[in-house]
Amino acid sequence: MEPAGIGDRVEGLHAVAAALESGRVERLTVQRPPGAAVAELLESHPGISIKEVDDLRAFSTTAAPQGILAECRPIATKSLEELVTTGLPPALVVLDHVVDPQNVGAVARAVLAAGSTGLVVSGRRAAPMGATVFKAAAGALETLPVALVNSIADAIQRLEQLDVWTVGLDATAEESIFGLPLLDQPVAIVVGSEGLGLSRLVSERVSKLVSIPMASPVESLNASVAAALAMFEVARVRKAGS
Amino acid sequence: MEPAGIGDRVEGLHAVAAALESGRVERLTVQRPPGAAVAELLESHPGISIKEVDDLRAFSTTAAPQGILAECRPIATKSLEELVTTGLPPALVVLDHVVDPQNVGAVARAVLAAGSTGLVVSGRRAAPMGATVFKAAAGALETLPVALVNSIADAIQRLEQLDVWTVGLDATAEESIFGLPLLDQPVAIVVGSEGLGLSRLVSERVSKLVSIPMASPVESLNASVAAALAMFEVARVRKAGS
Repeated sequence: MEPAGIGDRVEGLHAVAAALESGRVERLTVQRPPGAAVAELLESHPGISIKEVDDLRAFSTTAAPQGILAECRPIATKSLEELVTTGLPPALVVLDHVVDPQNVGAVARAVLAAGSTGLVVSGRRAAPMGATVFKAAAGALETLPVALVNSIADAIQRLEQLDVWTVGLDATAEESIFGLPLLDQPVAIVVGSEGLGLSRLVSERVSKLVSIPMASPVESLNASVAAALAMFEVARVRKAGS
Repeated sequence: MEPAGIGDRVEGLHAVAAALESGRVERLTVQRPPGAAVAELLESHPGISIKEVDDLRAFSTTAAPQGILAECRPIATKSLEELVTTGLPPALVVLDHVVDPQNVGAVARAVLAAGSTGLVVSGRRAAPMGATVFKAAAGALETLPVALVNSIADAIQRLEQLDVWTVGLDATAEESIFGLPLLDQPVAIVVGSEGLGLSRLVSERVSKLVSIPMASPVESLNASVAAALAMFEVARVRKAGS
């Protein structure tokens, strides 16, 4: 079942400030008495219903809501077709069942900075796109379009049909992402779950598997670091070619 | 006051496994009954004193010790002079009072993968190099040499005297780190604290301020993502020149 949207619940200073900027906050709940940063935020966004409570953590989903949480009009998710027709050559990031919501949010924040045009996540066996993801994204999900799909493997197939080149990150792949040609083409970078990497079916379906060459092969990179490195490489190639 | 070393207390599966590999674990405390991953770890490292407890979290510093914690012989910290004489041209990362221990650990993990030869952190106004840092580093701090200094600004000056080029990351700097020449020279990348960036004195003392060019200027990058991008750029330049 497809939810109506994401981000109906936003917690933490940065994430709430970004939702306020987007004009989609319907009601705020704040810790009594509000701290200086929260008070400043409230002052600069008058006219929104505010409830003050004695223990905000009793109302919050995240462990540290930083004194403020917001109920919001949800952000509509996009279809894959919408994601690939943004005008720019799409530079998507596909998360293959990344389960840690902190990581999902951190990926969104990092790849938006790099110029990603959209994020594809699974609605199943993955972190739900809730308050923890939005808090870690620190506002990035107000801007970065998101597609929620049932199957990442099917989404890879569909993206290929839509002429998007799918490139999976795999620590064991011989070819490096650095210097990879064709990153100026419509591309989707596929990032696997922590520890487990890409699922077998996804590995088989992507057009290309590449690695991030590491000096010390002991450990894998965190998903947000890997996604950021890949997406900044896309940005570098596109800038060099422009 | 200089501590005798760091990492005398390590928690979490990856971090404890790495400390066991380093041969510096003196005593283990595990949740009763041990889970499969912990049991496997214990089996492959016989002869170490093990205490089983009913609630490991009552003994742990981190919120999620993943069933195992270790008391260890500490890792000796290094002097700046030792850090710059590793044989390779040094590629250091200096943290200017990054206060979130998760971030410090994530930086260590990411820059070790990129080939960093050492980490410089402050013993004051910064995250202590404790169990949370080691857990987030997921073993990286068993390998990556660390210097603990009293003043980051003084450390910058000392590194310059030791012929290390100090490069500060500053979102407002005009020049980009990508394509920056001289990264094949002995270099130290200086990363600021979350939100606040580099301190004024550190900004003044570094030889160069550069930015990571961002598509979306709204948000700053997470410290570990910024440090990883910079250090992988150092690796790219060094590989291209070799």
